[in-house]
Amino acid sequence: MLLVYEQPLNEKIRNYLRIETVAAQVDAHSQFNHPGAELAFFRSLFELIELMERADLRSDILKDLERHQGQIALWRQSDSVDQTQLDALETQFKALHQRLHSQSRPGQQLKTDRFLGALRQRMNIPGGYGNFDLPQLHYWQAQPADEKVQEASQWRKELAPMVDSIRLLLTMLRETARWGDQMAMNGCYQETCEQGLELLRVQIKQEYGVYPTISAHRHRFTIHLINYESGKADNRNLPLRLSLSMEPK
Amino acid sequence: MLLVYEQPLNEKIRNYLRIETVAAQVDAHSQFNHPGAELAFFRSLFELIELMERADLRSDILKDLERHQGQIALWRQSDSVDQTQLDALETQFKALHQRLHSQSRPGQQLKTDRFLGALRQRMNIPGGYGNFDLPQLHYWQAQPADEKVQEASQWRKELAPMVDSIRLLLTMLRETARWGDQMAMNGCYQETCEQGLELLRVQIKQEYGVYPTISAHRHRFTIHLINYESGKADNRNLPLRLSLSMEPK
Repeated sequence: MLLVYEQPLNEKIRNYLRIETVAAQVDAHSQFNHPGAELAFFRSLFELIELMERADLRSDILKDLERHQGQIALWRQSDSVDQTQLDALETQFKALHQRLHSQSRPGQQLKTDRFLGALRQRMNIPGGYGNFDLPQLHYWQAQPADEKVQEASQWRKELAPMVDSIRLLLTMLRETARWGDQMAMNGCYQETCEQGLELLRVQIKQEYGVYPTISAHRHRFTIHLINYESGKADNRNLPLRLSLSMEPK
Repeated sequence: MLLVYEQPLNEKIRNYLRIETVAAQVDAHSQFNHPGAELAFFRSLFELIELMERADLRSDILKDLERHQGQIALWRQSDSVDQTQLDALETQFKALHQRLHSQSRPGQQLKTDRFLGALRQRMNIPGGYGNFDLPQLHYWQAQPADEKVQEASQWRKELAPMVDSIRLLLTMLRETARWGDQMAMNGCYQETCEQGLELLRVQIKQEYGVYPTISAHRHRFTIHLINYESGKADNRNLPLRLSLSMEPK
């Protein structure tokens, strides 16, 4: 099995990736069709709200969405590009930009919601979500699953413009870079990049029993392979694949 | 549907209930058969470890287990009691006491585990469990489910003597009290108890659309019914059932 590890090279991409991870958790628990889903759902939801509270996040995303629309306009000038695909992509970017632009304070409604507010306060206490700490949660949990799914989907909708935008931006970042084969010598691989790096992706076969730790900045990165069992550096020569997403010019 | 709400009247029972709640979460996510289970499992596990770090918890439980064994000896003197049932119960208490007694520092191995240690540190950061924050978790998650279940069961075993003891103690506390019918007048019910109260349980039909908030100390408690939809006091006269578990004499 191939595992992909990702390393963000700046704070903005780091946030995008974290939000993507947490949003996937929210989705995973939002159908309330397994025991314990409710609590896991609320925890991830509050984590997502917290990550989205960063002051510059919304304007970062809006700027990125605009930049991509500019990029699409450039691509249009090339004959070799499928114009229909570009149309579809442009429509996506425009729609997301509009949705996010019209939402001046994303997640604000969730922050003022009485029920969510009570939960959020208590959930920082270890085990602080039992039926004496949060009787209203106990009541809520006992509702039919479809009502809970319905309500959860309303809450998620509040954050969707941000989440959907970040997902599309990360997809673009990943898909516009190519995979190349490399070799880690003595469990180590190093590279220097002239153009600033934004996202580094490393693909390693799981059967090697290693995972990468990466130290990196915009112009240089070093990958050390760690043996999962021993927790120590693995000194073998091992093949890996790399994908480098560069900063916009 | 009948919903049961519980109110602990002292710090010890409060801890027992929280541990029971968190342990149920750990169990719910320990089969790794739904997406997002891994993270929810580790979060609950670390929460459980934290709750169990209280200095006096182990000795409280040991004392309670001993007290129950004394109680069983007293019950034996009564002819009306099924001696075979008492034997079975006594065996349970003895076995738990022995397991917990032989474990001088429950959960210690989990605290020194390298993998768990790295996870625990990172998980307090919102979204701090993506594949760049915790590549070893990414590696771990990709293992076959049965290997993960196996490893998780080893970790849970470390905490089992405490968890199983608390579960039995709470079962005894609940089952030795009887349910009685009462009426909340104007959405309020109050009672004074001469013998100190340890655990109060309130049963309310969900269709009334209310949940209780309880203010209580050992000798007196007040239940206020809150309307779930409005979040405000509900002034109807409503039937409820109460079960009062008293402190040991």
